Amino acid sequence: MNDRRDAALQYAHENRPRFLDELKEFVRIPSVSTDPGAKGEMQHAAEWVAEQMHGLGMEKVKIYPTAGHPVVYGELLKAGADKPTALIYGHYDVQPAEPLELWHSPAFEPTQRGDNLYGRGASDMKGQVVISLKAVESLVRNGGLPINVKFIIEGEEEVGSPSLGDFIAAHKDLLACDFAINPDTGMMGADIPTITYGLRGLAYFELRVSGPDHDLHSGQFGGVVHNPAQVLCELIAGMHDEQGHITLPGYYDSVRPLDAEEREELGRLPTDEAFYLKQTGAPALDGEAGYTPVERVGARPTLEVNGLLSGFTGEGSKTVLPARAMAKISMRLVPDQDPEEVHQQLLRYLEEKSPGTIRWELIKMAGGPASITDRHLPAVQSLEKSLEAVWGKPASFRREGGSVPVVAQMADILGVDSVLTGFGLPDDNLHAPNEKIHVPTFYNGIDAFIHFLSNLAE
Amino acid sequence: MNDRRDAALQYAHENRPRFLDELKEFVRIPSVSTDPGAKGEMQHAAEWVAEQMHGLGMEKVKIYPTAGHPVVYGELLKAGADKPTALIYGHYDVQPAEPLELWHSPAFEPTQRGDNLYGRGASDMKGQVVISLKAVESLVRNGGLPINVKFIIEGEEEVGSPSLGDFIAAHKDLLACDFAINPDTGMMGADIPTITYGLRGLAYFELRVSGPDHDLHSGQFGGVVHNPAQVLCELIAGMHDEQGHITLPGYYDSVRPLDAEEREELGRLPTDEAFYLKQTGAPALDGEAGYTPVERVGARPTLEVNGLLSGFTGEGSKTVLPARAMAKISMRLVPDQDPEEVHQQLLRYLEEKSPGTIRWELIKMAGGPASITDRHLPAVQSLEKSLEAVWGKPASFRREGGSVPVVAQMADILGVDSVLTGFGLPDDNLHAPNEKIHVPTFYNGIDAFIHFLSNLAE
Repeated sequence: MNDRRDAALQYAHENRPRFLDELKEFVRIPSVSTDPGAKGEMQHAAEWVAEQMHGLGMEKVKIYPTAGHPVVYGELLKAGADKPTALIYGHYDVQPAEPLELWHSPAFEPTQRGDNLYGRGASDMKGQVVISLKAVESLVRNGGLPINVKFIIEGEEEVGSPSLGDFIAAHKDLLACDFAINPDTGMMGADIPTITYGLRGLAYFELRVSGPDHDLHSGQFGGVVHNPAQVLCELIAGMHDEQGHITLPGYYDSVRPLDAEEREELGRLPTDEAFYLKQTGAPALDGEAGYTPVERVGARPTLEVNGLLSGFTGEGSKTVLPARAMAKISMRLVPDQDPEEVHQQLLRYLEEKSPGTIRWELIKMAGGPASITDRHLPAVQSLEKSLEAVWGKPASFRREGGSVPVVAQMADILGVDSVLTGFGLPDDNLHAPNEKIHVPTFYNGIDAFIHFLSNLAE
Repeated sequence: MNDRRDAALQYAHENRPRFLDELKEFVRIPSVSTDPGAKGEMQHAAEWVAEQMHGLGMEKVKIYPTAGHPVVYGELLKAGADKPTALIYGHYDVQPAEPLELWHSPAFEPTQRGDNLYGRGASDMKGQVVISLKAVESLVRNGGLPINVKFIIEGEEEVGSPSLGDFIAAHKDLLACDFAINPDTGMMGADIPTITYGLRGLAYFELRVSGPDHDLHSGQFGGVVHNPAQVLCELIAGMHDEQGHITLPGYYDSVRPLDAEEREELGRLPTDEAFYLKQTGAPALDGEAGYTPVERVGARPTLEVNGLLSGFTGEGSKTVLPARAMAKISMRLVPDQDPEEVHQQLLRYLEEKSPGTIRWELIKMAGGPASITDRHLPAVQSLEKSLEAVWGKPASFRREGGSVPVVAQMADILGVDSVLTGFGLPDDNLHAPNEKIHVPTFYNGIDAFIHFLSNLAE
C-alpha cells in the first residue's frame, strides 16, 4: 500500500512542471460566473475539466446543464465495495477580475514571479481542483486509486451556487458517498498545515435608494430634497454601533455563543493581530468589541459594504444631486443564523429607519447558512495524519471566515459530512487583484492529497 | 428709438426658425469641459462663437488661449461714448451628458418634442448665449446697437471657471465696462419673469478613504478591519444633524442671516412646497429645519453628496471588502461664507471624526463665493421694464441656489455689478439627462433682450 503511495509521490514530483502548465491552461479560461457575457468561457472551462476526467479513465463523465452554468461529474469506483467512496467537490468558476488596472500582470494570463503564479482563480479554486485531479492521476498511474472517488465540479460557486442544490437533490443516487471532500478552504501560512472545521454562511443584498425622479442640479434644488446618497450613507452608518455590533433587530439572537474551550483553542492559533495587520495592510484593526481577531473572523457574524455607487464618479466635478444611490451589502453568518432570517432583519431595519423622503428597494442575492464539521470524524483524522506527513508538524484546527454553501447542502441533501481542506494562503489575494498561488504549497498540496487518499483506504 | 427696437423685434420674429436652427448647430458640439478628451470639441465650440461674432460685424474678435479652455472675446462699440458699455458674459461649455442611457434622445442630437428642444446645453447655457447674440443681431440689422457691447464667452464654467479670473485680471482694459450682463440664471416659470439678485457660491471636494492596502475577501477578513466604504458612510452621515443642519465646526458662523423684510419678500414667490415637489418628483421635501423651501434653496448653505464609488458595483454579487471608497461632496455657499473657510472646516471635521483605522485624503476642486446684486441699480431697473414689456406683468425678484463664480470675479477685478438674467425654466433638467429649452420662452428671451439693450440706452 505504501509502495503505491510512494510511487505516486515520486511520479508527482517528476511531473511538477507539467502539472503547473496544466494549471496555467485552466487559469487562462476567463470563467467569470457573474458575467452574463461569459457563457462560452464557462462552457470552455467545464469542457477542460471533463477532458481531465476522461484522461484519468473516469467513468460517467458528463457536463450536466443547469438553470445556470453546467456541473461536471465523473467517477472512478474501482477500489472495491469494501473501500470508502469520497465525493470530491470543486468549482471551475472564478470571481470577476475588476479593477483590472490594479493587476501587475493580466488576470487571465498566468504569470510566475518568484515562488508565485499570478492569475484570477489560481488559488480560488482552480489550483485546488488541479491539486485533487493530479493527486488522483499520480495514484491512477501507479497502481490505481486506493478508494472510490466521485467528482462534482460546479460553475456557480462565486455567485452563491444557485443551481447546485437542485442538482444534488436530482442526482442523490449518482452522488451517494460516505463523505465529501471540499478543498475550497485554505491554510493559515505556508508552514502551518490547517484543517478548517467551521465556515461562515453568507447573505448578500443590493440596497437601492431613490428620491427625486431624475438627477437634479445641486444649486437649483440643493436644500429642499433629501439626497439619496446621503440617506444611503445614513442607513449604512446606522447598521453598526460604536462597539462594532450590528444593529439589525434580533441579529444576534440565533448566534451560537463561543464556549470557553473553543475560545482557548482558537487563542492558540498563530493568526494574531500582527498577522492580520500584515495580511491586510490596514493602519489598525477594527471590529466587534469583546472578541479577538480570530474569533471575529471565524466565529462572529459581520455586515460588510461590498460596493457603493451614486451620482457622478468620473474625473473632475459635476454638481449633480443624484436621483439614486446603490449599495451592495453582505453578511457573513455563523451557526445558527439563517440567511432568510437576516434578510427579514434587514428589511425590518430599513422599514424602521428609512425616512419618508426617499424610496428604497432591497434585492436578495446569494445566500447560504454557516456550517461546522465534527473534528473527530475518521476522514478528518486521515487528513490530519496526511498534513503531518508532508509538513512534519501537527495540523492547526480553525474556523474560517469564508462561506462554502455547498457544505450545508451536502449535509442537508446527501446526509454526509464534508472534510474541509485546501492549500490557499492568506496572502493569495482571493477576490482581489493579483490573486496568486504559492507554487511550493501547490506541490505540497498534491503530496498531501496523495497521502490523504491513501490514508482513507486504511 | 422705439422704431429701431420695433423693427428689431419684427426681424427677430421673422427669423425665429433660423435662430432655432443655429442653436441646434451649437448644441450639436459636445463641448464637455470636464472631459480631458474633448479638447477638439471645445475649440470647435469656441470657433462657432467667434464665427457668430464675425457675422455681427464685431471687432477685436479673438479666441484667447488659457491654461484650460479658451475664452472668446468680441466687441461692438459704435453707439457712442455717451452710451453705456455692457459686458455680456456667457459660457460655451456644458456638463457631461452621463448617464447616457436615461436620455430619451441623444444628448448631442438636439431633438424637438412639443414646445421643447432637448439636448445637453440647450438651456445651460448655449440657449442663453444664442438669445443674447440674436438680440444683438436683430438690432444690428435694423439701425445698429443702441449701446456699446463687449462679449466674453468662456469654456470652463461647468468646471468652476479656473482660468477666468486670471484672464479678466490680465485684460482689465479690454473688458472695461459700466456693468456686466450675466444671462446664466433662470426664470421660476414660463409665465413668471424673474430677476435674480442673489447667487450661492460653491466649494467642491473629493474625499477618499482607504484602509487595507488591497481589496480583501470579505469572508477571510470581514470582522478585523474597518470597511472604508462603511467609514465613508459614517463620515458623510455625521455631516448633517437630525434637523438638517450641517455639523462642520463653525459652518454657520459667517452666514449672513435673513432679515424679516427679505423673508417676507421671498415668501411671496410662487415657488412653494408644491412647486418643488412637482419639479423634483421626490416623495417628500426635506432640508434645514426653520426655513421655507425657497429660503433653503436661495439663502441657506447646503452640503450635498454628488457621487459615491467603492468596491464592486457591477451586476451580481462579489464578496469584496473594498480597499478604498470615494465621495464627491460639494457645498452651496451664501454670503459671507468663503470657499477656503469651508475647506478648512471640512478638514477640521475629518480630523476630528475620522477613526485611526483608515486613511483619508481631501482634494479641493472648484470653488467660488456667493454674491448679491443691488436690485436698485439702473441696469436692473431697465431689465425689470423689459421683462414687463414682454410678459405683461411685473418681474419677481429672487435669490437663486446655483453658483455663477464669475459674478464675484467681475466685482472683485473689474469693480462692476452684474445684472443677472436668463430664460431657463425650473424643469429644464440642468446638469441632468434630458436637458431642454422651452422654445416659446427662448423666443420671448430674445424679445426681452432686445427691449433690454434698447432700454439701457435711455
